[in-house]
Amino acid sequence: MRPSQREPGQLRPVRLTRHYTRHAEGSVLVEFGDTQVICTASVESGVPGFLKGKGQGWLTAEYGMLPRSTGSRMKREAAQGKQSGRTQEIQRLIGRSLRAVVDLGALGERQVLVDCDVIQADGGTRTASITGAFVAVHDALSLLVQRGELTALPIRDHVAAVSVGIWQGLPVLDLDYPEDSDCETDMNVVMTGAGRFIEVQGTAEGVAFDRTEMNQMLDLASAGIARLIELQKAALAG
Amino acid sequence: MRPSQREPGQLRPVRLTRHYTRHAEGSVLVEFGDTQVICTASVESGVPGFLKGKGQGWLTAEYGMLPRSTGSRMKREAAQGKQSGRTQEIQRLIGRSLRAVVDLGALGERQVLVDCDVIQADGGTRTASITGAFVAVHDALSLLVQRGELTALPIRDHVAAVSVGIWQGLPVLDLDYPEDSDCETDMNVVMTGAGRFIEVQGTAEGVAFDRTEMNQMLDLASAGIARLIELQKAALAG
Amino acid sequence: MRPSQREPGQLRPVRLTRHYTRHAEGSVLVEFGDTQVICTASVESGVPGFLKGKGQGWLTAEYGMLPRSTGSRMKREAAQGKQSGRTQEIQRLIGRSLRAVVDLGALGERQVLVDCDVIQADGGTRTASITGAFVAVHDALSLLVQRGELTALPIRDHVAAVSVGIWQGLPVLDLDYPEDSDCETDMNVVMTGAGRFIEVQGTAEGVAFDRTEMNQMLDLASAGIARLIELQKAALAG
Amino acid sequence: MRPSQREPGQLRPVRLTRHYTRHAEGSVLVEFGDTQVICTASVESGVPGFLKGKGQGWLTAEYGMLPRSTGSRMKREAAQGKQSGRTQEIQRLIGRSLRAVVDLGALGERQVLVDCDVIQADGGTRTASITGAFVAVHDALSLLVQRGELTALPIRDHVAAVSVGIWQGLPVLDLDYPEDSDCETDMNVVMTGAGRFIEVQGTAEGVAFDRTEMNQMLDLASAGIARLIELQKAALAG
Amino acid sequence: MRPSQREPGQLRPVRLTRHYTRHAEGSVLVEFGDTQVICTASVESGVPGFLKGKGQGWLTAEYGMLPRSTGSRMKREAAQGKQSGRTQEIQRLIGRSLRAVVDLGALGERQVLVDCDVIQADGGTRTASITGAFVAVHDALSLLVQRGELTALPIRDHVAAVSVGIWQGLPVLDLDYPEDSDCETDMNVVMTGAGRFIEVQGTAEGVAFDRTEMNQMLDLASAGIARLIELQKAALAG
Amino acid sequence: MRPSQREPGQLRPVRLTRHYTRHAEGSVLVEFGDTQVICTASVESGVPGFLKGKGQGWLTAEYGMLPRSTGSRMKREAAQGKQSGRTQEIQRLIGRSLRAVVDLGALGERQVLVDCDVIQADGGTRTASITGAFVAVHDALSLLVQRGELTALPIRDHVAAVSVGIWQGLPVLDLDYPEDSDCETDMNVVMTGAGRFIEVQGTAEGVAFDRTEMNQMLDLASAGIARLIELQKAALAG
Repeated sequence: MRPSQREPGQLRPVRLTRHYTRHAEGSVLVEFGDTQVICTASVESGVPGFLKGKGQGWLTAEYGMLPRSTGSRMKREAAQGKQSGRTQEIQRLIGRSLRAVVDLGALGERQVLVDCDVIQADGGTRTASITGAFVAVHDALSLLVQRGELTALPIRDHVAAVSVGIWQGLPVLDLDYPEDSDCETDMNVVMTGAGRFIEVQGTAEGVAFDRTEMNQMLDLASAGIARLIELQKAALAG
Repeated sequence: MRPSQREPGQLRPVRLTRHYTRHAEGSVLVEFGDTQVICTASVESGVPGFLKGKGQGWLTAEYGMLPRSTGSRMKREAAQGKQSGRTQEIQRLIGRSLRAVVDLGALGERQVLVDCDVIQADGGTRTASITGAFVAVHDALSLLVQRGELTALPIRDHVAAVSVGIWQGLPVLDLDYPEDSDCETDMNVVMTGAGRFIEVQGTAEGVAFDRTEMNQMLDLASAGIARLIELQKAALAG
Repeated sequence: MRPSQREPGQLRPVRLTRHYTRHAEGSVLVEFGDTQVICTASVESGVPGFLKGKGQGWLTAEYGMLPRSTGSRMKREAAQGKQSGRTQEIQRLIGRSLRAVVDLGALGERQVLVDCDVIQADGGTRTASITGAFVAVHDALSLLVQRGELTALPIRDHVAAVSVGIWQGLPVLDLDYPEDSDCETDMNVVMTGAGRFIEVQGTAEGVAFDRTEMNQMLDLASAGIARLIELQKAALAG
Repeated sequence: MRPSQREPGQLRPVRLTRHYTRHAEGSVLVEFGDTQVICTASVESGVPGFLKGKGQGWLTAEYGMLPRSTGSRMKREAAQGKQSGRTQEIQRLIGRSLRAVVDLGALGERQVLVDCDVIQADGGTRTASITGAFVAVHDALSLLVQRGELTALPIRDHVAAVSVGIWQGLPVLDLDYPEDSDCETDMNVVMTGAGRFIEVQGTAEGVAFDRTEMNQMLDLASAGIARLIELQKAALAG
Repeated sequence: MRPSQREPGQLRPVRLTRHYTRHAEGSVLVEFGDTQVICTASVESGVPGFLKGKGQGWLTAEYGMLPRSTGSRMKREAAQGKQSGRTQEIQRLIGRSLRAVVDLGALGERQVLVDCDVIQADGGTRTASITGAFVAVHDALSLLVQRGELTALPIRDHVAAVSVGIWQGLPVLDLDYPEDSDCETDMNVVMTGAGRFIEVQGTAEGVAFDRTEMNQMLDLASAGIARLIELQKAALAG
Repeated sequence: MRPSQREPGQLRPVRLTRHYTRHAEGSVLVEFGDTQVICTASVESGVPGFLKGKGQGWLTAEYGMLPRSTGSRMKREAAQGKQSGRTQEIQRLIGRSLRAVVDLGALGERQVLVDCDVIQADGGTRTASITGAFVAVHDALSLLVQRGELTALPIRDHVAAVSVGIWQGLPVLDLDYPEDSDCETDMNVVMTGAGRFIEVQGTAEGVAFDRTEMNQMLDLASAGIARLIELQKAALAG
C-alpha cells in the first residue's frame, strides 16, 4: 500500500486556482496534494538577441523554491549567487515543454516569461509546474487576443506532466515526497492533449528498469496526463 | 483624498495567517492590503562562526520578491547571480529589528533563519515583512518551549513596523504603491510593544522635510504600530 | 538516406583508445565518428561532506567542450565565469549513469572524479562521454585492485549510451550533428550490460512523438548499446 | 566623560582638503578626527540606460575601505568578488543625499560619479563621506561652469551629514569608533543648508530609544550639521 | 646530469601536427616532449569595442588546462567560476606575443581568437602554446588569403618561445616538470625569427640570479628559439 | 629630451613616508613623482591551508587602484565583481618579490598581508609598490621583534624595483605615464640589495628589442635600484 493510501494509478488531489496574484497576465496556483507552485506568465515585447528580426516569438521559464518550501531549509539561490544544476535542468524542461504547444510564429516578436515558484514542496514540483504554467500561459495569451493584440490564440494543444516510478517494485503514478525519496526509478513524462510525448525522462539511480516496467510506467503516465488535461480544461472553462 | 480613500492615519486591512505552509517551525502570510508576504522562521542548531562558543544564539533574515510580484516583471535575483543593494538593505533591516526583541542569550547556540518572500507587492513590503515575521518567530520559538527545548520564550517584547510619508503635502500612514511612488518623503518606522523606537529610516529624494513634518510622521507611526501590535496579539491568541 | 549514408540502425565508427594521457588513473579517448572526447577517471581519497563517515565512496563527473570543438567558436565557460545549464545537465547525467553500475559501498571512502572533455564535436557528445568514461573508470578501479587497495573490482555491470531520434520521419540510431540539428525528436538512452535502462531522456521540441515511435527508438537503442558494450569489452581485453 | 574628552555636542576636528589628488574634476580629503576619506567627483558624458533621452543628468556614488583602514584587516571586496550589504547601503545613502541638492535637470545628459574611499577609519565614515563629497561635487561642477559647459552651477543647497547616538545614556554628537562600538543607539542624519532633513537613519540594536531621546539626537545633529556646512563654505571660499 | 638525460642546451623532442581538429581555421597539436597542447585559431568578423571603427584587427588568446592534464587533478576553472591569476597571466602573454608579429592594420576589422588547451602537462605549457599557436594563426590567416579575403598574409615574422632556468646551478634549456619544480630561477623568453626579444620573464623565488647567469640563460634561449622556428618552418612547408 | 626633462638614468623624486596610517603594523606612502601608493603590511597568526603544520610563515600581496587615481575613471573592481588580469599579475609579482627576501622559515606560522593601494597613478605603480611595501614589511616585522614575538628580523636583504624602457629609441629609467604609453619596450626589474635579480619582465608590444638594448636597460635598472635601496635605508634610519 502506498504511504498516501492511494491506488497505484491515482493522482493526488489536483487544484488549479486562476488569477492567483493580480499583476501577471496569467497567474495560477497549482496544487498536486501538498505540492504548491505559483505559476505566472508575463508577456513582454521583444525577443532575445538570437531571434531578433525573425518575426517570431519566444517563451522561456524560470523556476525557484522558497527556502523553506522543503522539510529542512535550503539555501536561497539568490544569496548563493547561482542557480543549482537541478534548478537549471527543471527550468529548461518547463520551457521546452511549453514551447512545444505554443505557436511561436503566430506570437509575433513577443516573449512569454514563465515563473514557477514553489511555495510548498512534497514531490513532483516540476510536473505540477508544467501543468499549472500551461493554464497561466493560456490566460496570458487569451488576454492578448481579448485586447486585440493577437487575432487568434497561438496555442496548438494542451500540455501537462506527471511523474511515474517504481516504488517497492510497484509501478505508481504521481509520486509524493515519501515515495520519491524511496523509489528505484523515477520518470517524468510530458504529453500533449493529443496523447503524444513531448518529454520522457526516466532515471534509475537505484535498480535499473526493464522494458516491461518502462511500458507500465508509460501507461500510467498516459492515463494520468489525460486526467490532468481534463482538469486544465475545467479550470479554463470555470 | 488618498488614492485608496483612506484617512491619513488609517492602515490598510491587515491580515496575519499563521501556519500558512507546513514545513517551517513558524509560517505566516502577512497582508497589508494587496501586499502579501510569506514569512517563515526556521530554527537550526549552531551559530555563525563569529559567535561559536559564546553560548548565545543568532537570528538572521533573508528577503526576496517573486519576479512577477510587481507590476512589471523584475529579473530573478538567483538568475542574475546576485542580490540587489535594495534587497540587502531590507534583509539587514528585518534581521536587526527582530534581534532587538529576541533574547539571543536565552536562545542558546541556535539560529533562527527568517525568510520573507513577497508574493504580491503593493508598497510597504519591508514593514509588512517585519510585522509578519515577528509572529512567525514567536510561533517557532513557542514550539521549542512546547518541545521542552527551551524553558521560557526568549522574546522580550513585540516588534512591528509601518511606513509613513508626506504625500502631496499630507502626512499619511502605511503608503501603498501609488502613494509611495508619488511622495516627497518616505519613512519606515520600527517600534516595540513598549512604544520605543528600534529603527527610524526617513528619506527625501524629492523635497527635504522639516522638523514639524518629522514629528507628524512619528505620531502617525506610533499610533499605527500600536494597532499592528494589537493585531499580532489577536493572531497569536487565535 | 541518412546524410552519412548509414543504415537507420548503424552506429558511426567507434574507437576507444585507452591510456590516452599519462597522468590519470584511467584515460580514454572515445570517438563516435568525428565526435572525440577525452575521458579521464581520477581517484582521490575522501568523500564529499554529505557522505563523511558513512564508509562508502562517491563518483562525480564534469563535462566541458574546448571552445573550438564546434563549427563556430563557443565562449569558454571558465572565462564566462559559469557553466551553462546544458553543461550541468550533461555532467549530472554522466555521473548518475556511472554511479548506477559502480558499487559505491565497496569503493570505501574514495571519490572517483570523471572528466569528459570534448576535443571535437559532431553530435552525441554526452553518449560518447558515458561510453568512454565507463572504460576510464574501469581502468582506474582495476589499478586500485592491482595495487592491492581494493580486493575486488567494485563494478557491477557495463554501462553505455547512445542517442536515437526521428529524422525526417525515420527512426535512426546514433545521430551526428547534421541529423541532430534537423530532427523532430532526440532521445538519449543509457543501458547496462544486462539490457536494463538507467536513463531515458527523450525530447521533442518539434513534433511530439507517439508510442510506436517511442518503441522503435527503444529497439534501436537496445541494439546499439549491446554493440557498444561489445566494443568496451574488446577494448578492455585489448 | 566621552573617551575623546569631547563635550556631548562637540564635533571632532574637521578638515576639508581640496584638490587632494590631481586627476579628478573634484578631489577632497575629508577628515573627521582620525577618520580620513578621499572623495572624488568624476564627470562623464552620458547617463544610465533608464535616463537616456530624458534630457537630465544623474549622480551616483561608490564607497570602499582600504583593507587596513581598520583596526584588524578587512578582506578586500574586489578579491571577495562582491561588495558587502553594508557597502551597498552606504553608497546608496551617499548617492541619494547628493542627488537631493543637485539639479539633475540642469546638469544635462552628464553623470557625476562620486567615489568615497576610506584611508583610515575611526567611526563616521559615511557621514564624513557625504560631507566631503559635497565639496568634491561642488568643485567638479564649478569646473564645468568655468569651462563654459554649464551656464550656472546646478547645485541648490549644501548638504552635510553627522552621526549622533546615545552613549552610556548620554546623547552625543559625531561618534568615534570607541563610542560607536559601545552605544545603545546610532543615528545618521543628513541635512541641507536650509536646515531640512534629507535622511534620518536611527538604529537601536541594543536598547530601543524613546521620543525624548529622538528629539535630543535631532537637536544635536541640527547644530552639528550647521557647523559642518560653515566649514564647507570656508573650504570652498579658501 | 639532467633528469631527462638531455644536454643543457637540448630541447625536448618537438612535434607540430597541423589540422589536428577539423572545425577551426587553424588547429595544431604542439608537443614539447610529454607536454601536449591543442592550439586553435578562430577568425571572426568584428573587433572588441575599444577598436570599433579604427579599421584594424585584433588578436586575443585564452588558455586552459584539462583538469587531469597534471599529476594530481586540478579543479576545473569553469566549475570554480573563475580563471586563476596564473591562467590570466599566461593568456595575456600568449596574446601579446602573437600580436607582436601580426600586422593588425592589414588584418581589417577581424578578430583572431587563439585557444590553447593543455591536454597533458610536463612543464613549459606556455612556451609550447606560443610556439604552436603561431602555426595555427599562420594557417588561419593563410586560409583567408586563399579565400581571397586578404590579399597578403598579415604576418611580419615568426614567433616562438622557450623556457630556460638555473637547475642545480646549471643553466638549462626547455625545463620539464621535474626540473621546473626544483629550479632556482625560471625564465620564459619569446623571440622573433629575426632574433629580437618580445618578452623576457625571469623569476627567482629561490636564489636570486646574477648578470652572468642572466646572460647564459639568454644565450640558451636564443639558440633554442632559432631551432623552434626552423621546426615551425618545416611544419608549415610540410 | 624626456617629457619630464629628466636625464635618461634619472629617477623621479622618490619619497617614503613611514607610519602613514595608524592601524597597520607597517604603513608607508611611497611616491615616485606623481605616483602615490599606500603600502600596508598586516601580520596575522596562522597560514594558508597548503602550509599548515609546516612551521613556516607566508607573505602575500593585494593591489588595487582607486577608481579615479587615473586620468579617466576606471571601473571599481569590487563593483565589477572581479579583479582584472592586470591586477592579479601585479599582486602576484609584489608577493613573489617580497617573499624572495623574507625568511619565511624564521617567521613562524604567521602571515604577512601586504596591501598596495594606488591613490594617484602616473606610471610605475607596481615598482613603487614593491619599493614601498618592503619598508612597510620591514616596519611590521621590526615591531614583532620589538614586542618579543620574534628574536631576530626575518629579512635577508633589501628589495626594490624600477621600470626601464626604450622611449623613442632611447633607453630610459623609471618611466612616467607619458613615456610609458608611448614607448616601444617596457621592462620591470626587481633586485636585491646585493645587486642580484629577483624578477625581470620585459615586454615589447611595439618594436622587439635586441640584446644590446636589453643590456642597456639592465644597466639603468641596476643603478636605479641601488639608489632606491639607499633611499629605503635612509627612510628606515629616519
